[in-house]
Amino acid sequence: MHIGILTGGGDCPGLNAVIRAVTLALINECGARVTGIERGFLGLLTRSVRPLGLREVQGILAQGGTILGTHNRCDPFHYFGADGADCSAQALAFARELGLDGLVVIGGDGTMSIAHRFEPLGLPVVGVPKTIDNDLAHTDRTFGFDSAVAVVAEALDRLETTARSHGRVMIAETMGRYAGWIALEGGMAGGADMILLPELPFSVEAVARLCAEREAGDGCTLICIAEGARAAGRELTVRATLADSPDPIRLGGVGQWLQQQLQPLLSSEVRTTLLGHVQRGGSPTPYDRVLATRFGYHAAQLVRRGEWGRMVTLHGEDCASVPLSEVAGKSRNVPLDHPLLAVARGLGVSLGEAHR
Amino acid sequence: MHIGILTGGGDCPGLNAVIRAVTLALINECGARVTGIERGFLGLLTRSVRPLGLREVQGILAQGGTILGTHNRCDPFHYFGADGADCSAQALAFARELGLDGLVVIGGDGTMSIAHRFEPLGLPVVGVPKTIDNDLAHTDRTFGFDSAVAVVAEALDRLETTARSHGRVMIAETMGRYAGWIALEGGMAGGADMILLPELPFSVEAVARLCAEREAGDGCTLICIAEGARAAGRELTVRATLADSPDPIRLGGVGQWLQQQLQPLLSSEVRTTLLGHVQRGGSPTPYDRVLATRFGYHAAQLVRRGEWGRMVTLHGEDCASVPLSEVAGKSRNVPLDHPLLAVARGLGVSLGEAHR
Amino acid sequence: MHIGILTGGGDCPGLNAVIRAVTLALINECGARVTGIERGFLGLLTRSVRPLGLREVQGILAQGGTILGTHNRCDPFHYFGADGADCSAQALAFARELGLDGLVVIGGDGTMSIAHRFEPLGLPVVGVPKTIDNDLAHTDRTFGFDSAVAVVAEALDRLETTARSHGRVMIAETMGRYAGWIALEGGMAGGADMILLPELPFSVEAVARLCAEREAGDGCTLICIAEGARAAGRELTVRATLADSPDPIRLGGVGQWLQQQLQPLLSSEVRTTLLGHVQRGGSPTPYDRVLATRFGYHAAQLVRRGEWGRMVTLHGEDCASVPLSEVAGKSRNVPLDHPLLAVARGLGVSLGEAHR
Amino acid sequence: MHIGILTGGGDCPGLNAVIRAVTLALINECGARVTGIERGFLGLLTRSVRPLGLREVQGILAQGGTILGTHNRCDPFHYFGADGADCSAQALAFARELGLDGLVVIGGDGTMSIAHRFEPLGLPVVGVPKTIDNDLAHTDRTFGFDSAVAVVAEALDRLETTARSHGRVMIAETMGRYAGWIALEGGMAGGADMILLPELPFSVEAVARLCAEREAGDGCTLICIAEGARAAGRELTVRATLADSPDPIRLGGVGQWLQQQLQPLLSSEVRTTLLGHVQRGGSPTPYDRVLATRFGYHAAQLVRRGEWGRMVTLHGEDCASVPLSEVAGKSRNVPLDHPLLAVARGLGVSLGEAHR
Repeated sequence: MHIGILTGGGDCPGLNAVIRAVTLALINECGARVTGIERGFLGLLTRSVRPLGLREVQGILAQGGTILGTHNRCDPFHYFGADGADCSAQALAFARELGLDGLVVIGGDGTMSIAHRFEPLGLPVVGVPKTIDNDLAHTDRTFGFDSAVAVVAEALDRLETTARSHGRVMIAETMGRYAGWIALEGGMAGGADMILLPELPFSVEAVARLCAEREAGDGCTLICIAEGARAAGRELTVRATLADSPDPIRLGGVGQWLQQQLQPLLSSEVRTTLLGHVQRGGSPTPYDRVLATRFGYHAAQLVRRGEWGRMVTLHGEDCASVPLSEVAGKSRNVPLDHPLLAVARGLGVSLGEAHR
Repeated sequence: MHIGILTGGGDCPGLNAVIRAVTLALINECGARVTGIERGFLGLLTRSVRPLGLREVQGILAQGGTILGTHNRCDPFHYFGADGADCSAQALAFARELGLDGLVVIGGDGTMSIAHRFEPLGLPVVGVPKTIDNDLAHTDRTFGFDSAVAVVAEALDRLETTARSHGRVMIAETMGRYAGWIALEGGMAGGADMILLPELPFSVEAVARLCAEREAGDGCTLICIAEGARAAGRELTVRATLADSPDPIRLGGVGQWLQQQLQPLLSSEVRTTLLGHVQRGGSPTPYDRVLATRFGYHAAQLVRRGEWGRMVTLHGEDCASVPLSEVAGKSRNVPLDHPLLAVARGLGVSLGEAHR
Repeated sequence: MHIGILTGGGDCPGLNAVIRAVTLALINECGARVTGIERGFLGLLTRSVRPLGLREVQGILAQGGTILGTHNRCDPFHYFGADGADCSAQALAFARELGLDGLVVIGGDGTMSIAHRFEPLGLPVVGVPKTIDNDLAHTDRTFGFDSAVAVVAEALDRLETTARSHGRVMIAETMGRYAGWIALEGGMAGGADMILLPELPFSVEAVARLCAEREAGDGCTLICIAEGARAAGRELTVRATLADSPDPIRLGGVGQWLQQQLQPLLSSEVRTTLLGHVQRGGSPTPYDRVLATRFGYHAAQLVRRGEWGRMVTLHGEDCASVPLSEVAGKSRNVPLDHPLLAVARGLGVSLGEAHR
Repeated sequence: MHIGILTGGGDCPGLNAVIRAVTLALINECGARVTGIERGFLGLLTRSVRPLGLREVQGILAQGGTILGTHNRCDPFHYFGADGADCSAQALAFARELGLDGLVVIGGDGTMSIAHRFEPLGLPVVGVPKTIDNDLAHTDRTFGFDSAVAVVAEALDRLETTARSHGRVMIAETMGRYAGWIALEGGMAGGADMILLPELPFSVEAVARLCAEREAGDGCTLICIAEGARAAGRELTVRATLADSPDPIRLGGVGQWLQQQLQPLLSSEVRTTLLGHVQRGGSPTPYDRVLATRFGYHAAQLVRRGEWGRMVTLHGEDCASVPLSEVAGKSRNVPLDHPLLAVARGLGVSLGEAHR
């Protein structure tokens, strides 16, 4: 048996742990030959591959990133060659030339969709879900999320000392364009006073009122805001035009926008930190290393049992799988009745709602 | 409503997060008065209590230990006063004097048993489970466990560089007298080559053989062993007598014992690290902060709804509860068919078994 | 003897370690009474003080921030009361009312200047230098700097995995408006490929050329840039006007500016992270805890020996002091012949210079 | 020019940073060819070498251990071949066969002595000092020390929460057989209440008295003890004989010994943690990465300038060097008048002295 592995989409702590687990399990349990495909599906077009053996995956468990490289946007079905045809046939031909019996694809929603299209063309696939946003419909948790939450919590720990020493309002903007999981769990773990999510439009007035109340009580305010959070009925994009260009531009993120809204209403200083890519790089937490290892092992079991066309999932403490056909385009936002929202409110953490 | 809180048993990261969540939720949602009882049940005898308000629990979320103090062995039913009677009546009288309507008790198996005996005497109780060992029968996870696993994984990361640089066998002994969860998850997260658990007696010969094989291949070996692990059919206690005392004494832990067994059989140097109490102290991981917060909030809900006599649990992603009467004396070992054992074997991690 | 302590200026890891050391040493060695003044010199106007004893400073060694609070801009010589006179007399009167024999002032350049003006008015002062920027003229190192460098290095570690996995250019903007010490040491510790400092104007063309070369060699580029770095002969401020306001605004920092310059010249994606306030909050590194403790102890010695009007310094491994009169307004940039610049160049780390 | 690099002696965080800096600087500045010799001087006997280029040293800056491997005891002048002659000639012959113009040797006292003996035989050497103990006579600091101190401080942070929650005496035993630097700086950084050093024999009675006083005041005690610390006039080694062997054995370390002495005298529980090898493994702190990089670069400069027979040193903020002939056998203990001892005493940290 000869199996290819590739990683697609954005960086995520735990990718190497999956690669290691898939490789070790396939070699140890199936005697398989394993080949790494570089930079996602792009490697099938550029013919960039390398063998993966025990030695190649040694010591990578705790390493961030992916030893195979990744690519955000390479979809062979949307790349077109000189003859006007898309490049999927070329990718497929190269997979056949390698003699691949199947592919283990580690990636997010987009990567899974591409993988799913190769199936009917004769390249069987097993998927491993990857998203630091934890917003996949069919699985309780995804690896990388715990690591991102840990980065946010550590940043809030640091910002809190400054906020308290100065009596300031500190805003930390986290990842999460559509789903607020990182901001919610990171904010709760970091002791935020206010958590603003994409799922729950906030009221600038309510936010300002709370900051002012805390200010009056000699306190500081720590706000954890997801990049996708929005004020109800307000447009975020401050239209700006550069002196030397007529095109309007985007001005920082929602954190900076909120700072601009709040500052005139408060006497405390307001400061914003944009956490950015540090949330998706670096060594995975031990929790994520174990989860990624379990996902990788489970993917190898699906391969071993010939259960192609499925993606690994987690339910409670157990790994399971779902058909790839059910995966595409389904994301999981924070439901408005999620228990952790009740916990937040019960502890006096504001969600920026107008009427509370 | 006036509620007391106490923490009993050994230290565990996340205790303060529970105290904070219980206190905030009881104050915010029930307008309750909250009193902290110091040093576990001992505080009911020594009359050591203090009020807990918003200010008292501010900033303790990320702190290790317990601001209330704890005590390993104080059981009022087994302390006897001058009059020959046990001290439970005295404890109860003090609780009445305080006007407590109930008690939130955070502790392990022993603490829950004591709490349960106060119930029929008219002091209603809600329990929050605490054990870094993760060996409670009725809950998937307990707070503190993730933090202990993280300490083990970080130690293995450090030991691995030395093991590899010197071509050594490094043994790390973790907590876990009866259950091997910490060694298993910590070992998997830290990339151990061998994991030895209380649940699965190991063969010294098998361990030595694997070390020798790796030695021959220019490799090093990282062994993660739970303090309760034992070699099949072998007695651990090397009987030693001191020059100035005829009593036999105990010689270090099982890690050091294993080192003594292995060293004569190998040419590599063997070294042992006993991780000890660093596994149960210090700031909780973000995961544990969220879990402990959820446990504390849920305990406050049980109080609010008058569901006394129950202990909080976690099933999958949801908090629930069980009657205290079902809790006592039930622990949860690593079952021999646990998926993570299969993962370990599949990845070539040895469990020290004789015939594999 | 009755001594006051205050902390002024921005937050900095290690402030609490200084407060603790000063307090413990004054109490243990001089039997002094110690009073904390809250929020810098502001506390002398608002009459906000609190006693500091052994109990108050227990457990604060490793805590970030300052338990006394701080204030960025309160200068009693520039605050004017209802009578038109500045508030220095009011501050002085309150210090006399408290019966203070002297003040230990922990702060930066601005705080030292204010402190120095109180001296001739009869309020003797000892200073402890504080700046995470490490840019003080009279001392080799200041506490907080090592902690800031550690935050930068950890962020670069994380960004590097993403940069390498995607083949990207990652820009990390650090603190350092005038002096590049944080970017230089943080960049060297984090393995940056390029370090851009305020002291050494860079060439956008040189930067782009190097990125392109690395891109061609399948590599990624990690750029560590101080907020005060500037391109030679180029104006940073992209003038922008908001749709609803005619005033030109500032657009992000130099990191984002550089990204805008580089992106059109490269095929790799360029991404920027603005580290911000996480660099000055949080628990100090062990190195900073020891240094801050030594500074605090040395300040107490100056008080004990009556050596007023001096600021603590570090030379090599030894603490010393200089007159406050020599301190004001003298900062220490990275000299262009600093050995670490030679190390950087020798290791192939680019400093963005045009002709290398 | 063709230069060999080797690492000898025990593991130490920062070795890879030195290897990287030496390699990059020799290649970039001298166009040299660089060869890594594996497992210390042993590699010269086993003919185990490998080329070091830009690619080989990429990404190793932050890695613990040494990519070249090391060996504790291989001294070619003390290995004897079949012909009865020592193996130094064999090592030398292989170095000539490789065409080495010189050797950069990274190691401790023992490694430097061996290196020094090769010099008159025609193999010129430059040395880079390595000891986590920081006890070298000619240099202010050595890399790896800051990392060891950080491990100790973090462990004390963790142990402190448990000590305080239980009202316990916690003993942490650190490395430092002859010199107490790690215990001293680690203890100060971790807020130890008592620090016991090899340089200053302690009094068990004084230690017990202080613990009892703190116990009486409801406090806990955190003791940081170097492995080489000894009680004045007391023999450490409890002679024990095993049931099945007549030979006396050693019983744990001085930490466990102290626990046995203290426990009968106190009502608090006493617990010991033996930090062990985690102190010398793992990723170096940012401080150590910069220091190791500077040492490595400076070694390359000595090679470039032909200043053979010297070892790199640090004085204050500057790198310098001393002749290897002056290095051998000179170690640097904590002098009894060291400023940090005065700081400790001034802050009320006990050094276990009888008459204080």
